[in-house]
Amino acid sequence: MTKTRLSLYDTTLRDGQQTQGVQFSTHEKQLIAATLDRLGIDYIEGGWPGANPTDSAFFDAAPKTRATMTAFGMTKRSGRSAENDDVLAAVMNANTAAVCLVGKTHDFHVETALGISLDENTANIAASISHVVGQGREALFDAEHFFDGYKANPDYTLGCLQAALEAGARWIVLCDTNGGTLPHEIFEITKAVIAAGIPGERLGIHTHNDTENAVAGALAAVDAGARQIQGTLNGLGERCGNANLTALIPTLLLKEPYASQYETGVTPEALKGLTLASRQLDDILNRVPLKQAAYVGASAFAHKAGLHASAILKDPSTYEHIDPGAVGNARIIPMSNQAGQSNLRRRLAEAGIEVADNDPALARILEEIKAREDRGYTYDSAQASFELLAREVLGQMPEFFEVKRYKVTVERRKNKYNKMISLSEAVVVVKIDGEKKLSVSESMDEAGSDRGPVNALAKALAKDLGRYQAAIDDVRLVDFKVRITQGGTEAVTRVIIDSEDGEGRRWSTVGVSANIVDASFEALLDAINWKLLRAQR
Amino acid sequence: MTKTRLSLYDTTLRDGQQTQGVQFSTHEKQLIAATLDRLGIDYIEGGWPGANPTDSAFFDAAPKTRATMTAFGMTKRSGRSAENDDVLAAVMNANTAAVCLVGKTHDFHVETALGISLDENTANIAASISHVVGQGREALFDAEHFFDGYKANPDYTLGCLQAALEAGARWIVLCDTNGGTLPHEIFEITKAVIAAGIPGERLGIHTHNDTENAVAGALAAVDAGARQIQGTLNGLGERCGNANLTALIPTLLLKEPYASQYETGVTPEALKGLTLASRQLDDILNRVPLKQAAYVGASAFAHKAGLHASAILKDPSTYEHIDPGAVGNARIIPMSNQAGQSNLRRRLAEAGIEVADNDPALARILEEIKAREDRGYTYDSAQASFELLAREVLGQMPEFFEVKRYKVTVERRKNKYNKMISLSEAVVVVKIDGEKKLSVSESMDEAGSDRGPVNALAKALAKDLGRYQAAIDDVRLVDFKVRITQGGTEAVTRVIIDSEDGEGRRWSTVGVSANIVDASFEALLDAINWKLLRAQR
Repeated sequence: MTKTRLSLYDTTLRDGQQTQGVQFSTHEKQLIAATLDRLGIDYIEGGWPGANPTDSAFFDAAPKTRATMTAFGMTKRSGRSAENDDVLAAVMNANTAAVCLVGKTHDFHVETALGISLDENTANIAASISHVVGQGREALFDAEHFFDGYKANPDYTLGCLQAALEAGARWIVLCDTNGGTLPHEIFEITKAVIAAGIPGERLGIHTHNDTENAVAGALAAVDAGARQIQGTLNGLGERCGNANLTALIPTLLLKEPYASQYETGVTPEALKGLTLASRQLDDILNRVPLKQAAYVGASAFAHKAGLHASAILKDPSTYEHIDPGAVGNARIIPMSNQAGQSNLRRRLAEAGIEVADNDPALARILEEIKAREDRGYTYDSAQASFELLAREVLGQMPEFFEVKRYKVTVERRKNKYNKMISLSEAVVVVKIDGEKKLSVSESMDEAGSDRGPVNALAKALAKDLGRYQAAIDDVRLVDFKVRITQGGTEAVTRVIIDSEDGEGRRWSTVGVSANIVDASFEALLDAINWKLLRAQR
Repeated sequence: MTKTRLSLYDTTLRDGQQTQGVQFSTHEKQLIAATLDRLGIDYIEGGWPGANPTDSAFFDAAPKTRATMTAFGMTKRSGRSAENDDVLAAVMNANTAAVCLVGKTHDFHVETALGISLDENTANIAASISHVVGQGREALFDAEHFFDGYKANPDYTLGCLQAALEAGARWIVLCDTNGGTLPHEIFEITKAVIAAGIPGERLGIHTHNDTENAVAGALAAVDAGARQIQGTLNGLGERCGNANLTALIPTLLLKEPYASQYETGVTPEALKGLTLASRQLDDILNRVPLKQAAYVGASAFAHKAGLHASAILKDPSTYEHIDPGAVGNARIIPMSNQAGQSNLRRRLAEAGIEVADNDPALARILEEIKAREDRGYTYDSAQASFELLAREVLGQMPEFFEVKRYKVTVERRKNKYNKMISLSEAVVVVKIDGEKKLSVSESMDEAGSDRGPVNALAKALAKDLGRYQAAIDDVRLVDFKVRITQGGTEAVTRVIIDSEDGEGRRWSTVGVSANIVDASFEALLDAINWKLLRAQR
């Protein structure tokens, strides 16, 4: 049986940016576009050029992608031609291969929000799509409020779709803008649209999660015959979010009847990168990844119930609906170190530490990692801290120096010009080869700006380490990430520091404490110790 | 038309406890049971008596509820009678009005996990249910792995259900234990079960969210004729969680065809307590509530896009699928650099600030917000800081007090027991009514643990504000978020603080600086000033 091709359209960079608290930088947009392209998405909607400075900057230097880069905009306004609409011109000027224009299809919105006649709106849709097609671009028509509009006045909404189709739109996208349409309605209405003459292979679906049914709604539209699915990574989006591609993609590839009947641009190999793609987006947003997320969440294959866990050991299919490896995720079984140990040995080998297969030290290391993870540590990215911890348990960690104490002050007061300034000062006391050394630094950078207490502490710590000084002189802090791992008054801070040296080596370390300065100091200390370990070799 | 009654069965206290990291205390179970009862749930599954000490303790002093209190257990094991099975006896001894017993219905599991014959398993089901009914209790049969089992061997699974029904089970619950069954399959199979002779008014549905379709799956079963829905508050549960009652209940009450065809024990009045019920559970779990949650999330009715916001001002139904008040939630129109003047005026009005349509101050406020967003501030969630900023620009911000200076020290050293400890100490100097006041605090909490420099600073700042002291004594810091807005050595820190007062008001403030302590102090200061502004009224 030949499979029917489904098109995947990602709008993380446009609709996803409507999420409360999300504002992508141009660089972040480039990173996300690269992730989407690796995954095998067909269309990447980059934003609305002209509406937002970072969106315009993104298109000015749009990354080369296999996916079709798409600019978003709206149909031309009344009283001017498509050629003379400056908002539409800004969208066209982004020079993308495809352009998606949103237009109203709900009579109520046309008359109250736009205040124009229904026919005028239909004419605006047709003229705008014709203009896009006339410029040699692929046109998509995004039918705003489609389902609500259809329920109110089916003839009018269908007329709008027909106008866009006749004007040459490649895709007509049915939007459930307010997110209130339930899956069975989406199924029925999509069927009716196809019966009315809009071919399913030209139809897309765009759902929102306001009733927690966005994924089911998208699947219902596919069941009815639609062939493009719009959504976002991790279900990012305004209000309750958009249809979650991170949940939809594995369902389409792994579950029946989709797996047998349809194909997408995502290969089974690329699907293994899905969990990583999801985490990368959270990293960019500095969000704690949702543990319960379908397929990619850290808990998605975690088996807590004792009965389940023992059955899983016999046969994973007893309590797992798919193989976690298919989406790049992993099974978690508390108290079962079997899978954990081989994983651990691989990571130790990567750090140059050989431990025999049945060495009881493996269990001790796993236990220590688990205890620390419970306190908020994470060793997924902090490979250097992982290595130091393992060496500590194995008794293979030299003590280069001992930190006796430190003290940092942060002061904010008026300077002699009567302006409020802040300044930090750090004193670190270390003992090296039996000798005590006091170092002090302040937080001013070369330009005279305060860089804060962690900066002062880092400089003081690295100022005089005696015979080790030469080895750390080229260490540079290149990134600093802070995350609160528990909300509320019990807030615990996790700091991850990325360091680099003169040879271009890069390593990450982690610190955790209720005290943010302490957490930072712990990560700094690990960074220095790891460098000294490498310098020894 | 008379409405069909749907039964709501909550398993937050049993299946919800399978969530990674969740372990309810007996007292917490009592609080949650009270919340569920207020909401109008029909059945509260309290746990598995005998399997877990807190579950047993909960049943020993089970709260009096309008809902039917239900104990969970499993069907009797082979080789003994139901009367002589000690696991079942522990369940019966909880003396609940209803008992729900899980039993296997998938032939593969019966033969590999239990290692008994298929007929023996069926006989165990019948004998166990008969025993429960014989003791005068209401019996529910929880058909484990039902959908996978049905696909493998429909006759056997149907035989199990029939045995339970004939033995007197009030409800036969179809469980999608592994969470992999999609809604359309649930619909088809539930229809087939009813066609095979199990009446819909005896059928329940129990879904999991492994494909993000748990809610849709439950609705599909109702569409097919099932009349009991099992789920948990906030979708708590193992792996990706259970069907989310917090999303299902409003859909059943507010959306068609459910609203017209069905009724539940939840009244429209009780529905208004749904958002609070959801937040209370998160409070008990010490979790930060999921902003994107359907219906009850803080972002569920937050409108960011400028076009949407201006339409909402004219008529909320333009971009809202329900009235947020129906579920006890509220509309939010946040500021962001995508928003225009209408958005701004709306937010000002919410803060009690009236500005005329064409007042040039609007442009000045927008400009100030934009400039600050470029430096890393965000006002999407930090509404209180937004209000202070607007009042500042408008010349409507009183100066309650002036911070002359502050100083924080963070020290890490050995204590007298030769153990490394850290301690912070903060001095804040303010001027109120011409009088200078020095306050000092340290970072120890009641338990003697260091909570860090920001904690010390917050306590010192709120220690003595003279005649304002009474107004801020009930201010409590409830959440603290940190984000590095630029990576690397140029790192700029954004801190968002959520505060709460004795009247249950909650507000968010923001601070930005290269110095993390400074950023925190700025957010703290805004929090205090906002409270003083409200106290003035």
